[in-house]
Amino acid sequence: MTIETLSETGCFGGKIGFYKHASAVNNCDMQFSVFVPPQAASGKVPVLTFLSGLTCSEENFMVKSGAQRMAAELGLMLVSPDTSPRGDNVADDPDGDYDFGLGAGFYVNATEAPYAEHFHMYDYVTQELQQVIFKNFPGDAARHGLTGHSMGGHGALTIGLRNPDMFKSLSAFAPICTTLHSPWGKKALGYYLGKDTASWALHDACEVARNVQDSGVYDSILVDQGADDPFLAEQLKPELLQAACDESGLPLQLRIHDGYDHGYYFISTFIEEHLRFHAERLQN
Amino acid sequence: MTIETLSETGCFGGKIGFYKHASAVNNCDMQFSVFVPPQAASGKVPVLTFLSGLTCSEENFMVKSGAQRMAAELGLMLVSPDTSPRGDNVADDPDGDYDFGLGAGFYVNATEAPYAEHFHMYDYVTQELQQVIFKNFPGDAARHGLTGHSMGGHGALTIGLRNPDMFKSLSAFAPICTTLHSPWGKKALGYYLGKDTASWALHDACEVARNVQDSGVYDSILVDQGADDPFLAEQLKPELLQAACDESGLPLQLRIHDGYDHGYYFISTFIEEHLRFHAERLQN
Repeated sequence: MTIETLSETGCFGGKIGFYKHASAVNNCDMQFSVFVPPQAASGKVPVLTFLSGLTCSEENFMVKSGAQRMAAELGLMLVSPDTSPRGDNVADDPDGDYDFGLGAGFYVNATEAPYAEHFHMYDYVTQELQQVIFKNFPGDAARHGLTGHSMGGHGALTIGLRNPDMFKSLSAFAPICTTLHSPWGKKALGYYLGKDTASWALHDACEVARNVQDSGVYDSILVDQGADDPFLAEQLKPELLQAACDESGLPLQLRIHDGYDHGYYFISTFIEEHLRFHAERLQN
Repeated sequence: MTIETLSETGCFGGKIGFYKHASAVNNCDMQFSVFVPPQAASGKVPVLTFLSGLTCSEENFMVKSGAQRMAAELGLMLVSPDTSPRGDNVADDPDGDYDFGLGAGFYVNATEAPYAEHFHMYDYVTQELQQVIFKNFPGDAARHGLTGHSMGGHGALTIGLRNPDMFKSLSAFAPICTTLHSPWGKKALGYYLGKDTASWALHDACEVARNVQDSGVYDSILVDQGADDPFLAEQLKPELLQAACDESGLPLQLRIHDGYDHGYYFISTFIEEHLRFHAERLQN
């Protein structure tokens, strides 16, 4: 489990770095980014993992969110993995579209050929990435929060709700709240998991929210959504997540913000509140 | 002087937008970005213009610096123009390199063919952009500061020192401090202004700092530089700027930061201090 350092530089008194490793789970090289806050000089620090959206790599969140400033103040380590396996041998969208394949792993373990050979992002995020991070960086695995944006918000909600032993705080920005009832979700999970949608329920945030045993770990699940997001009605559907959480009793805190769209200007505006939300829950 | 809105969205309670207009000065369409802080709802606000570096467009600063957060708190409008004329008819680097031509206007008025047809970035920044901004946005032309990065730091220093009637506060990040004695400068100004370097002195920050009549407008000129910047010794040479300011008595505040390189993680770390520096000097 050796990692290669691609670059490292100073950032808000801490260090931002980009790394590569051979992934057994995805059967290819994977890249990820880590921000280590200055507080890590005196001991292990809590960690927040950010899962990115369609077309993104391990770079977008670190470049665009401005999260490092508050992470350096709160003493949070930030981790952002890539959004899919990559490489010449990795099968991509047959039509070359942006919403499936490379940059669009949807945080599932593909069971269908040819995608099953590489696309195991669920196992990557919940297993291999954990080992890589906590072996090589000064993060405390017992104080680990999860968040993400759009497709990565879907990843954060489905993975977080199913793994409260691993993640102790949970939030999302403009998540795809349902894969069963969104064009993006139906296309991608159709390719990755096949036409029988029974197996999709574990990767649909509404279905997971409705059916998961409430662990009691998450006293609040913070979701921010821009009211002017062009994907809101057709692809994201937070009203379905609200209904599912109302049904199951999960403590969803859904906030709709007038004037904000789907992009990083929206994320950067509200990232400080998410970092504070996670830091509060990851103390001690 | 009509402008076309390419996009606008919410950001830290204000608005970030991207715009296009026909430029008479550069003889092509030009694009720029503006962040309008929430304070503009109740009157004109001070303005900080950021000049970007090689390869950048009007987008890099707005996407990567995280400046909007503090600008929204301080009530500063932010403006970032593109770094050169662009278009199929605009002459580019004959070798296709990144350091000259498109994305590398060096904030001069070219006198040499074929560049003289479009490359008039000095006039663009000091004349046309001013008219476009103050006609269309709620900025106060009497409270206008200037900053920039790398090639844009060169632009900020040369333009700011020569135009204290226009700009009331001045800073730079990792500026190219001399065009006469850096490979980037020698290449670009050789193409734009020709082999006779007499005309270059107006576009060499050290020469300007040494020869300009001190207006007394700038009580301090803040320059931040990363000690681990790979371009420091060969291209940037802040020690020459320090010597020139020592000679002429200009109040340079040069800060060298261990562990930081030339990129936006460096800028984002120190942008808050620059915004506070400008806001202090642009009040009332």
